[in-house]
Amino acid sequence: MPVGTEARLRELSLVLPAPPGAGGNYVPAKTLGRIVYLAGVISTGPEGVIAGTVGLNRSMEEGYLAAKSCALTQLAVLKQHVGSLDLVKQIVTVNGYVNAVAGFSDSPKIINGASDLFVELFGESGRHVRAAIGVSALPRNALVELQMTVELES
Amino acid sequence: MPVGTEARLRELSLVLPAPPGAGGNYVPAKTLGRIVYLAGVISTGPEGVIAGTVGLNRSMEEGYLAAKSCALTQLAVLKQHVGSLDLVKQIVTVNGYVNAVAGFSDSPKIINGASDLFVELFGESGRHVRAAIGVSALPRNALVELQMTVELES
Amino acid sequence: MPVGTEARLRELSLVLPAPPGAGGNYVPAKTLGRIVYLAGVISTGPEGVIAGTVGLNRSMEEGYLAAKSCALTQLAVLKQHVGSLDLVKQIVTVNGYVNAVAGFSDSPKIINGASDLFVELFGESGRHVRAAIGVSALPRNALVELQMTVELES
Repeated sequence: MPVGTEARLRELSLVLPAPPGAGGNYVPAKTLGRIVYLAGVISTGPEGVIAGTVGLNRSMEEGYLAAKSCALTQLAVLKQHVGSLDLVKQIVTVNGYVNAVAGFSDSPKIINGASDLFVELFGESGRHVRAAIGVSALPRNALVELQMTVELES
Repeated sequence: MPVGTEARLRELSLVLPAPPGAGGNYVPAKTLGRIVYLAGVISTGPEGVIAGTVGLNRSMEEGYLAAKSCALTQLAVLKQHVGSLDLVKQIVTVNGYVNAVAGFSDSPKIINGASDLFVELFGESGRHVRAAIGVSALPRNALVELQMTVELES
Repeated sequence: MPVGTEARLRELSLVLPAPPGAGGNYVPAKTLGRIVYLAGVISTGPEGVIAGTVGLNRSMEEGYLAAKSCALTQLAVLKQHVGSLDLVKQIVTVNGYVNAVAGFSDSPKIINGASDLFVELFGESGRHVRAAIGVSALPRNALVELQMTVELES
C-alpha cells in the first residue's frame, strides 16, 4: 500500500501553517465535481507577509522560499477544505506571480519553490502545468502569489 | 421560493450595460458542460473605457468602481450568452488585474468592487475564489480587467 | 467529410516546432476528462527565445509574430500530448501575457497573433475566450507567454 500524502508530509517534516482568512470578499476554495479551485495566496512566514521585490530588495533564494511558503499555505487551505490531503489525486495547474523588477527573466526558478514541494510530496501526481509571470504589484506587497487547481480522488 | 437573480438585479436597481464586442479575434463566452468561461473584460462607463493607473492618476475609489463596472459587464455578457441570469448557479473564479504603479499593495480592495457586487446579487453563491494582481499595462489602458468562470444550474 | 486539422495544417504550410522541454519542475500538458490544460509557453523562433519588450525594443509586428510562435508551440505540445491535432474539438481559453512598457494599451493586437492562427486553423472551433495582459517580466525575457486550455473530441 502506498504511503498517503498525510504520512508523507510527516516523513518530510513539513508543517502546514494555519490556513489564512481571505484577504477580500471571496472564499479560499471551491469544489466543482472533482476539481478544487484555490484562490491566490500570498507568501507568508512566521513574521507575517514575505514582502518585497526580486531584483530590488529580495534575492532568488528568498523568492524560492516565498514560493514554497505559498505552496504550504495552499496545502493548508486544501486540507481545511476537504479534510485530508490523502483525498488529493493530483495537482493540475499552478499560476505563479512573482513581484519583480521590470525585465526579470528568472521567475520559473522562483516558482520552482512551489513546484519542487508538490513533486516531493505527491511524486508524479504532483507534477502540474504551470505559468510563471513577473508582475509589478501584488497584494500587501507580497513577493509571490500562487493560484492553483487540484483534482480529488473520485 | 427564493427570489431569482433577475428579480434581485431589479431590486438592487442595477442596470446592465450593453454587452461589448470582443476587442480581438475571440469570443466573449464559451460553455463546456455546466461551466461558462468568460473572456476578460475591461472597465467601462457611460463615457467609454475607464482608463488610468491606480497610484498615478486614479484613486482607490475609482479603482473600486472600475472593478464594479467590469462585474456588470460580465453579467451582461453572461445574460446574452445563456439568456437569463436565473440560470447561474454560482460564481466560481474571478481573476482581477489592476493597472497600478509598481509596488501597489491594495489590489484586493480594488477587486472587491467586483466581488462585493457578486455577493450582493447572488448571496453565498456569489462567493468565489479569486486572484488579484497588479500589472503595468492593460488593453486600451483600462484601469481594471476581469476574467471569470461561473457554473450554470443543471 | 470535413478536412481534419492535420490536413489543414499542411494546406496552410504551417510547420510545428519541436515541442520544448518544460522550463522548470512541471509538465507541458495535463488532461482531465476531455479538457487539456497546457502550461505557459514562451515565444521562440529558429534562433531561440524571441525576447524583448514591446514599446522599448520590439515593434507591434514583432509582438504579433511572437504570439503566433507561442500558438505554434502549443500546437506542437498538444500534438505530442494527444497524438494528433485531429482529436481537438475546440480551443477553449487563451491567456496571453505581453512583455511591455508600463501603460502599453495594445496587448489585444499582439495576442491576435495567436488567436488569428487558431481561427485560421480550426475555423469557428478555434474561437476562444481570452485575456490579454501586459506585464513587466516574463521567463527568459520572452516577448510573449501563452497559456491555454482545449477540449478534445469525446
